[in-house]
Amino acid sequence: MAEIVIVNDVGPRDGLQNQPQALDPQQRLQLITAIRASGLDHIEVGSFVSPKAVPVMAGADAVVAGLQGLASGNYSALIPNLRGYELARDAGVKTVVMVLYGSDGMARKNVNMSREEADAVAARIIEQATADGVAVIATIGVAFECPFDGPVDPGLVADVGARFLQLGVDRFVLADTIGAANPQQVRDLTRTLVDRHGAQRLGCHFHDTRALGLANVYAAVESGIRYFDASIAGLGGCPFAPGAGGNVATEDVVMLLQQLGFATGIDLQQLLAASDLAQTLTGTAPGGRAKAWLKPWLAKQHQ
Amino acid sequence: MAEIVIVNDVGPRDGLQNQPQALDPQQRLQLITAIRASGLDHIEVGSFVSPKAVPVMAGADAVVAGLQGLASGNYSALIPNLRGYELARDAGVKTVVMVLYGSDGMARKNVNMSREEADAVAARIIEQATADGVAVIATIGVAFECPFDGPVDPGLVADVGARFLQLGVDRFVLADTIGAANPQQVRDLTRTLVDRHGAQRLGCHFHDTRALGLANVYAAVESGIRYFDASIAGLGGCPFAPGAGGNVATEDVVMLLQQLGFATGIDLQQLLAASDLAQTLTGTAPGGRAKAWLKPWLAKQHQ
Repeated sequence: MAEIVIVNDVGPRDGLQNQPQALDPQQRLQLITAIRASGLDHIEVGSFVSPKAVPVMAGADAVVAGLQGLASGNYSALIPNLRGYELARDAGVKTVVMVLYGSDGMARKNVNMSREEADAVAARIIEQATADGVAVIATIGVAFECPFDGPVDPGLVADVGARFLQLGVDRFVLADTIGAANPQQVRDLTRTLVDRHGAQRLGCHFHDTRALGLANVYAAVESGIRYFDASIAGLGGCPFAPGAGGNVATEDVVMLLQQLGFATGIDLQQLLAASDLAQTLTGTAPGGRAKAWLKPWLAKQHQ
Repeated sequence: MAEIVIVNDVGPRDGLQNQPQALDPQQRLQLITAIRASGLDHIEVGSFVSPKAVPVMAGADAVVAGLQGLASGNYSALIPNLRGYELARDAGVKTVVMVLYGSDGMARKNVNMSREEADAVAARIIEQATADGVAVIATIGVAFECPFDGPVDPGLVADVGARFLQLGVDRFVLADTIGAANPQQVRDLTRTLVDRHGAQRLGCHFHDTRALGLANVYAAVESGIRYFDASIAGLGGCPFAPGAGGNVATEDVVMLLQQLGFATGIDLQQLLAASDLAQTLTGTAPGGRAKAWLKPWLAKQHQ
C-alpha cells in the first residue's frame, strides 16, 4: 500500500489573506466545500484576528459554523494571540494554528514583539489549549530567511521546534514564508528534524517566489516529511517580497506526490474544479503551474 | 572553491525550433552573442537539417560562420544524420549533437526508423567524427516517457548510455523531451549512471511541462550530475504534448545552481538581459519562472 502524505490546504486563510479580493464568509465556505469535495480533508479555514486589522478574514466564526454542513475534516484556524484563541475555541474550532518566528524582525513587524515574547505568548496558548482539549499546530514563519534580518540560523529553528514539540504542540511546521529557501537548505533542516523527532509531528510550508516550491517539497519528502501546506490555485503571496509568488499550489503538490507514488486521498480532477472556483472567486489566483498540462491529461485518463 | 556545473544553452536551437516565430541567422547570432556575454560558454547554436523539413533552422552555416566574431566557447550544432554531420563539420562545427531514442515510437515519428536503426546511424557518425576530430554529444530523447509508447525502461536507457559512451561519445545526455519525468525517476536513473560512469561525461535535459523542471535538476544534481541543458527565457516546447511547457529556463537553472553553492561562471544580470532579448525577438518565450523575483533582487544586490 502506498504511503500517505497529508496535504493541508491553507488557501481559504493564508491564500485569501494575502491577495486583494475580499470574499464574504459564504464565498469562503463555497471554496472550502469545493476543496473538501476532492477528498482533501485538512483545511485552514480562517483566522480569528481583529476585523479591523485584517478585514478580509472578518466572519471567521460564520465560516466555522458553516463547516457543520460539510463532511467531517481536519479544519483549523489561525490565531494571533490568546484572545484569538478564545474566540476560535468558542466558535468550535478543534485545531488552532499559531505562528512562531525565525527572526526578531518578522516578529516585530507582525505582532510588535520580540521573537522570545512571541514564543512566550505561544507557550501560554498551548497551556490553555491543552486544558481545553484543542489541538495546536505551531508554524514557524521565515524558518529559512527573513526579509528584514536575512538568513535564519537552522540551529535556532531546530531548537524552537524541539521546545514547542516538548511543550505539546501536535505539529511543528517549517514555513518558508517569503519563498527564499533552496532545496539543499530544506533537505538539511528537515533531515535534522526528522532524525530527532520522527516525521509524525512535522510539516513544511513553501512559497513559489523563486520557482523552487516543488523542488523544496521534493527535498522535504526525501527527508521523510509527510505533511505539506499548500494553497488552492496558488492563492496568496507575501506583501514584503517584490515579485513574490504565492504559496505553492495545492494541485501541483498533489500531482507531484501522486507521481512519486504516495497516497493523498485526493481526486485531482475535483481538486482542479476547486482551483477553477478559486480563480473565478478571486480573479487573482494564478492557478497551479502544471494546470495547463494537468487538465487535458486527466481528461484523457478518465476517458 | 565552489564546484563547477556546466549550463548548456539550447535556446538558439532546441528553443527556437519548437516555437512558431522564425528568426533569421543575424537575429540568432544576436541572441547567441547576448547569451555568451553573460559568461555562459556552452551554446547549441543551430541544426544542420534540411531547410525544407525545418525552415526555422535555415542558415545554420551562416550562424556558425558568425561565431568567429564572438568570444571562444563550446558551440555545438544538432545533426540528424551523416549528411547533416558532414555539413556541420564542413561549416567548422567542433561539437555535434546527435539524438538517440528511448522508444521506437519517437524514433519512427522523428526519423522514420526503428530505435536500433537510429542507433546504427549514430554509431556510423561517431566513427566519422572520431576520424575527423569532431566531438560528439549523444542526447537520448524521451529517456523517461514517450508520448507514443508510454513509460521508458530505465534499464534500456542505461544500456544505450553505456554502449555509446564506449563507442566514444564525449557526453551522454538524458532528455526528458516531453517533461514527464518526476524527480524520483531522475534520482534513480542518474544515480545508476553516475555510479557506473562517473559524472564527467553525463548530462541532463529537462522540460517544465509539469512544473517539475527545477525539481528534476535538483534531483540530478543530488546524484552528481554536473551538466545541464536549458533554454534562455524557457524558449521551446514540444509539439506532441498538450499544454507542454518549454525547456527549463536557463536563468532559473543558473539561479538554482548558484543558490546551491555551485560555480557556473555566469553573470545572472547579463543572462536576464539575454532572456529579455529572447522574449523580444520571439514574442513567445515565457521567460524564466523566477524572473519576476530575480530582476529586482539582483538590482538590489548590485546597489
